[in-house]
Amino acid sequence: MQPFVVIGGVAAGMSAASKARRLRPDWPIIVYEQGSHVSYGACGLPYYLSGVIPDYRKMIIRDPEYFLKKMQIQVHVRHRVLAIDTENKKVLVKNLDTGETFCQRYETLLYAAGASPVLPPVPGVALPGVFPLRTLEDGLALHSRLQDPVVRRIVVIGGGYVGLEVIENLRLLGKEVQLIELEERLLLHFAPDFSAIIRDELEKNQVEMHFGESLAALRGNGHLQTVVTEKGEYPCDLAVLAVGVRPNSDLAKAAGIALGYKNAVAVDRRMRTNMPDILAAGDCAETYHRLWRKNVYLPLGTTANRQGRLAGENACGGQAEFTGVLGTSVAKIFSLAAAKTGFTEQEAAQAGLAAASSIVETIDHAIYYPGARRLHLKLVYCPRSAVLLGGQIVGSEGVAHRIDVLATAIAARMTLQELGEVDMSYAPPYKGVWEAVVVAANVAQSAWEKAKG
Amino acid sequence: MQPFVVIGGVAAGMSAASKARRLRPDWPIIVYEQGSHVSYGACGLPYYLSGVIPDYRKMIIRDPEYFLKKMQIQVHVRHRVLAIDTENKKVLVKNLDTGETFCQRYETLLYAAGASPVLPPVPGVALPGVFPLRTLEDGLALHSRLQDPVVRRIVVIGGGYVGLEVIENLRLLGKEVQLIELEERLLLHFAPDFSAIIRDELEKNQVEMHFGESLAALRGNGHLQTVVTEKGEYPCDLAVLAVGVRPNSDLAKAAGIALGYKNAVAVDRRMRTNMPDILAAGDCAETYHRLWRKNVYLPLGTTANRQGRLAGENACGGQAEFTGVLGTSVAKIFSLAAAKTGFTEQEAAQAGLAAASSIVETIDHAIYYPGARRLHLKLVYCPRSAVLLGGQIVGSEGVAHRIDVLATAIAARMTLQELGEVDMSYAPPYKGVWEAVVVAANVAQSAWEKAKG
Repeated sequence: MQPFVVIGGVAAGMSAASKARRLRPDWPIIVYEQGSHVSYGACGLPYYLSGVIPDYRKMIIRDPEYFLKKMQIQVHVRHRVLAIDTENKKVLVKNLDTGETFCQRYETLLYAAGASPVLPPVPGVALPGVFPLRTLEDGLALHSRLQDPVVRRIVVIGGGYVGLEVIENLRLLGKEVQLIELEERLLLHFAPDFSAIIRDELEKNQVEMHFGESLAALRGNGHLQTVVTEKGEYPCDLAVLAVGVRPNSDLAKAAGIALGYKNAVAVDRRMRTNMPDILAAGDCAETYHRLWRKNVYLPLGTTANRQGRLAGENACGGQAEFTGVLGTSVAKIFSLAAAKTGFTEQEAAQAGLAAASSIVETIDHAIYYPGARRLHLKLVYCPRSAVLLGGQIVGSEGVAHRIDVLATAIAARMTLQELGEVDMSYAPPYKGVWEAVVVAANVAQSAWEKAKG
Repeated sequence: MQPFVVIGGVAAGMSAASKARRLRPDWPIIVYEQGSHVSYGACGLPYYLSGVIPDYRKMIIRDPEYFLKKMQIQVHVRHRVLAIDTENKKVLVKNLDTGETFCQRYETLLYAAGASPVLPPVPGVALPGVFPLRTLEDGLALHSRLQDPVVRRIVVIGGGYVGLEVIENLRLLGKEVQLIELEERLLLHFAPDFSAIIRDELEKNQVEMHFGESLAALRGNGHLQTVVTEKGEYPCDLAVLAVGVRPNSDLAKAAGIALGYKNAVAVDRRMRTNMPDILAAGDCAETYHRLWRKNVYLPLGTTANRQGRLAGENACGGQAEFTGVLGTSVAKIFSLAAAKTGFTEQEAAQAGLAAASSIVETIDHAIYYPGARRLHLKLVYCPRSAVLLGGQIVGSEGVAHRIDVLATAIAARMTLQELGEVDMSYAPPYKGVWEAVVVAANVAQSAWEKAKG
């Protein structure tokens, strides 16, 4: 029996291998990972930069030895798959340490090659002093450079979740930070009011922001010295590139595996590619969206783990279908958290759905209990049926969990009234007597009734 | 036009009056409250004892002047309704300050008289030094007594939510605390494993606990000196009675209003009593339970507010039906929170439903991010359909909100699989990459599939 071969050993790959092992105790399972580590929590990297996470080894959930000894999964790090021979069902692998190459046959192949940082097509992008933050290796390199007290002024290029998380941690280190953002506001997938609240939080934390500026060049004499945009020049000691990621799909494409949305590997809801016995999962692949009802590209750690587990099950003969995502996400931004699920009004419009919305400002727990702070909630709903389509929350406490309540309600196709009538918990340290999500649902329900006339 | 008269001005009463005012701007609305304050957050009282809430006035959301000036609602505090004349549609009211009595006609009456602490039928229950904690007045009296450094040893009788919240705050004040609990464990509406975790937390905080002891007498010479049970004698300087509440339904009963479950005022889902034009809401009334599909007695602040608002709407001619409760609740217990929604297996059995359950222990956020602590979740589900019936959570972070996710899933009649497939948020400071609720749902789903065979 040929083995289950997995290309890529971070989130999707190791979830798949682990699930397959539980289902088929005797099947040989081999994972090739081109990096030096597998199964690590890449989402922790921004916090490692500042020392909030003091030891990078804490982010490594399990190492190759664990997988070999406890799960009989062979994990080869620093092994790059160079080619996939779909006809003869084998992969060509290169050991990056020795340089030798070899072939490995597979019964089933999982392509979980992940994604890479987008490198803007400008001069100087490869200069020393320009850092992406994607892999553990990236994190170690950037962390090491930040220890040098000479590194004082830092430009962060890109104000998405990762950019903002990096900024918070750079400020914790006492660095001067400038943000260059192509768009006119932060976090385009949020309502403008919410972007403004987050911008204010960054301002309060002495982050200099430049909006609507596109990168023109990175300049320096052997080392980055200036970030140049169409509108200005920003002298700095270091730059962090955080303008998004693109799927690592070249290897798949070269093997004739079909690509789909944004060049991610095209998959069906069983994570099958167009090639027999080849599955794909994680940041290299498309993701089915429950509201769009089609595949999109939304590379997130949660999705990678879910898709990987499902691919592992189907590699073992399962027929599981991926239910899909709602684009649920959250990020910590200084003392705030910003979270989102489902559609914004703009996204609903793009999907051809009418949408209405309602915003409330309330507090995160009982006003008389110490530490109550503002909480902003926006609900997006169908103006015909009042079914919930999306939500956004910005505030201090309970944001990540409250968005889960909304995600659950969307998954269950609840109406605003149904959500507003859920019996939620109450205790002064955690909630107001009217839970914020219920308040938001009730206010939206009233607005909806009024609009209906 | 005769006014809308409300008996009781704490949660349900003031919610009803406020809602009615919004719907009928010109209707006279009169509230009689026998206490000195209305519209206060009684759930904050334990925290006022310790000074966590430093000023009791913070717990008073709105005062009679506010209601009169801003909402044209006449609120009379220290006015007790002595009798209801249902035939002539009027109430007999006594001004507790002047002693005078008068009659007030009503068009519609809301009975929202609240609940009173259960006083155990033992000698000495009225001794000075024995304190209930129900009203703001109770809180002020107990707070004042606790300032006396002579008060060192305190016995708390009853280990429910209120008893436990009081204990935490007494320990914060440095008092020696002994708990006397009739049952063999804490919080009978939780699984025994969860009761044990909470007991350990109390032990860690030097609370002396005595289980399975029923109160026999409270003894003292003009002032409480000893709490006596069947099994022991506990010398103390003060005792707090926290053995539950009973509905204030005597006045209603005397007027011929029908009582129901546990002598709470019987209501239909529109909050109507058996008497025309008389509604009831809040801690004095029954509560419809979504899973029991019948009325129960579950006096909670959230329910009182929801029922009150609905009664206010229906007093104005509305036809709104109370969707009901799931018994969702949460309490802070030192560094833990304990939360519950829906059925335990025992409750399901009482309701004639088969139930299975599954417990997981996980962590509240990413293990590599500082401060991750244990989180225990129990899911109760239908062994036939795998529909979620209940949940219990004990842990440190996100407990109150995670129970809301479960309450939402129960309200939507989700199966374990549907819940486990909800796309929930992730960021290391708030969550593990597999959200704990999803882990619990997946583990229960596996157990269910295995049991099905």
